[in-house]
Amino acid sequence: MSETSPGEFDLIRDFFDRPELRSKRSDVVGIGDDCALLTVPQGFQLAQSLDTLVEGVHFPVNCDPYYLGYRSLAVNLSDLAAMGAQPHSFTLGITLPKADPKWLKAFSDGLAALAGQYDVGLIGGDTTKGPLTISIQAQGLVEEGKALRRNGAKVGDLIYVSGCLGDAAGALPDVLQGFTPETAMDAEAEYLLRRYFTPLPRIKLGLWLAENGVTSALDISDGVLGDLGHILKASNVGAELVVGSIPISGALIEKVGSEKAVNMGMTGGDDYELCFTWPENQTKPLSDSLAKDCQLTCIGRIIEGSGLIDVATGQALNPKAYCHF
Amino acid sequence: MSETSPGEFDLIRDFFDRPELRSKRSDVVGIGDDCALLTVPQGFQLAQSLDTLVEGVHFPVNCDPYYLGYRSLAVNLSDLAAMGAQPHSFTLGITLPKADPKWLKAFSDGLAALAGQYDVGLIGGDTTKGPLTISIQAQGLVEEGKALRRNGAKVGDLIYVSGCLGDAAGALPDVLQGFTPETAMDAEAEYLLRRYFTPLPRIKLGLWLAENGVTSALDISDGVLGDLGHILKASNVGAELVVGSIPISGALIEKVGSEKAVNMGMTGGDDYELCFTWPENQTKPLSDSLAKDCQLTCIGRIIEGSGLIDVATGQALNPKAYCHF
Repeated sequence: MSETSPGEFDLIRDFFDRPELRSKRSDVVGIGDDCALLTVPQGFQLAQSLDTLVEGVHFPVNCDPYYLGYRSLAVNLSDLAAMGAQPHSFTLGITLPKADPKWLKAFSDGLAALAGQYDVGLIGGDTTKGPLTISIQAQGLVEEGKALRRNGAKVGDLIYVSGCLGDAAGALPDVLQGFTPETAMDAEAEYLLRRYFTPLPRIKLGLWLAENGVTSALDISDGVLGDLGHILKASNVGAELVVGSIPISGALIEKVGSEKAVNMGMTGGDDYELCFTWPENQTKPLSDSLAKDCQLTCIGRIIEGSGLIDVATGQALNPKAYCHF
Repeated sequence: MSETSPGEFDLIRDFFDRPELRSKRSDVVGIGDDCALLTVPQGFQLAQSLDTLVEGVHFPVNCDPYYLGYRSLAVNLSDLAAMGAQPHSFTLGITLPKADPKWLKAFSDGLAALAGQYDVGLIGGDTTKGPLTISIQAQGLVEEGKALRRNGAKVGDLIYVSGCLGDAAGALPDVLQGFTPETAMDAEAEYLLRRYFTPLPRIKLGLWLAENGVTSALDISDGVLGDLGHILKASNVGAELVVGSIPISGALIEKVGSEKAVNMGMTGGDDYELCFTWPENQTKPLSDSLAKDCQLTCIGRIIEGSGLIDVATGQALNPKAYCHF
């Protein structure tokens, strides 16, 4: 921590240096000095992901602070999942228009709710004044050489995704109107809002994939078409997709109809499911050991060339990932 | 990197994934996957510091982007210096109102100018749209057990500071008027503006102190009175200061007069010099080996009790550190 002040220290102590957010690791020095200090066990690498969320851009003005805290950490843990890393700790840079204890308490509760599930401690950061912006850097441990990269997809590999896609996009109109799971109009809306506000980082799946020969992986934050495109580009391959196989929840179909639901499943962001490629001749069964925890769906296959082709039509599929600029 | 988009990728590629900013380390995987990956050699710890700079709060609106880039990284490297860590790498979360290539080029040049001096690579981050905000997390390597902490000051230790204090505070009126070193009105103003925009991270000093028995250290970002207070509190001790010994530059005295210069030396922030405590009976001479690189000045002594006392008057000295809230 630096560039702090007495007022700022009180904020940190009250809301961020609380027992529920402290690292349980004995080899970590957290909040309270110029730097945090941590040890990486021999044979492991540290995987680091930084995501910034800006009010009015990545979340609506007056967003519920509990869910904002939860989701800000979740999107970073999802990046760790996508690398096959075990969550270790995180740092928080938070810029606030004012120091509102009630808001800070709820935000901190949201962080703590998720941090506790994965045993990740808040080990440092910075609290500043300005437009509401949240930068979290999460870091995890992965055995040397076992990280799930984007550049290993091979021709013939099957393409899988976890969970259902498009749910968070389906929740967005309600999110923008200020709804939370607690104030949702019906059961479908509640499910979709939970999917938006409390995405499940697929840590367990990522760890399993890292141990079991997956060739490439990433998390879906901008829609599977766009994100799969990053794997294809990094691996110098193409892909054919069975659009009809993209897993869509009943709640999303109920809410927006089948056609729009499939479109959201292909291009909607914010689901934070994993997309990965799996060797066709891999003898280890993929789904058996994981099916209990996580639905896995094969949506296509890696082919020679570049770009995405719709198997049904033979036409190219254009990713329409949301562009920040 | 995550929550990115095609437009954002172009930005990253052009301005942040450039050779001058890439890590030269063979054990680092940088920009281009869900996470950066790094290795920490056995026997070392990773020291991490996160600082957020907000337009209109930590730097003026329309601040020169080159100097903004330089200074944003410098304040983080200073935290590493204060821990006695060797800079390793950094991540950047940057929020921009618009994608202005000229601005980005200059900002990136400023980052690269300093990064090159310390061989720190930009290994990851996030580019988002919104009010101009810069979060940098710098990380460095420090031998296990050798980090310079705040809690080791002992009664009898001498209190030292590096360089001159108050220069950056003296530059602030010119900074707010949009002056840079290149457009300064006179030589004194130019010197002070350089001190503000291009603070020198005291890495070499920090590394030497970590090897040679310093008892506590931190970097001065909020004024030596306030920052020394953190050492006193963490170490459960007090201090007596010789106010007249606080090192002040001729340029600052020339610019604001002696009385105001001393006040700025005690309470002005942003100099990023180090303050540390040194055992009185330490046989190794402190200044000889370092005097060539860095002016070191003894400004007082650790005593029993708590808080700061002015030796000349016997009165308590009140830190007036700038409060963000």
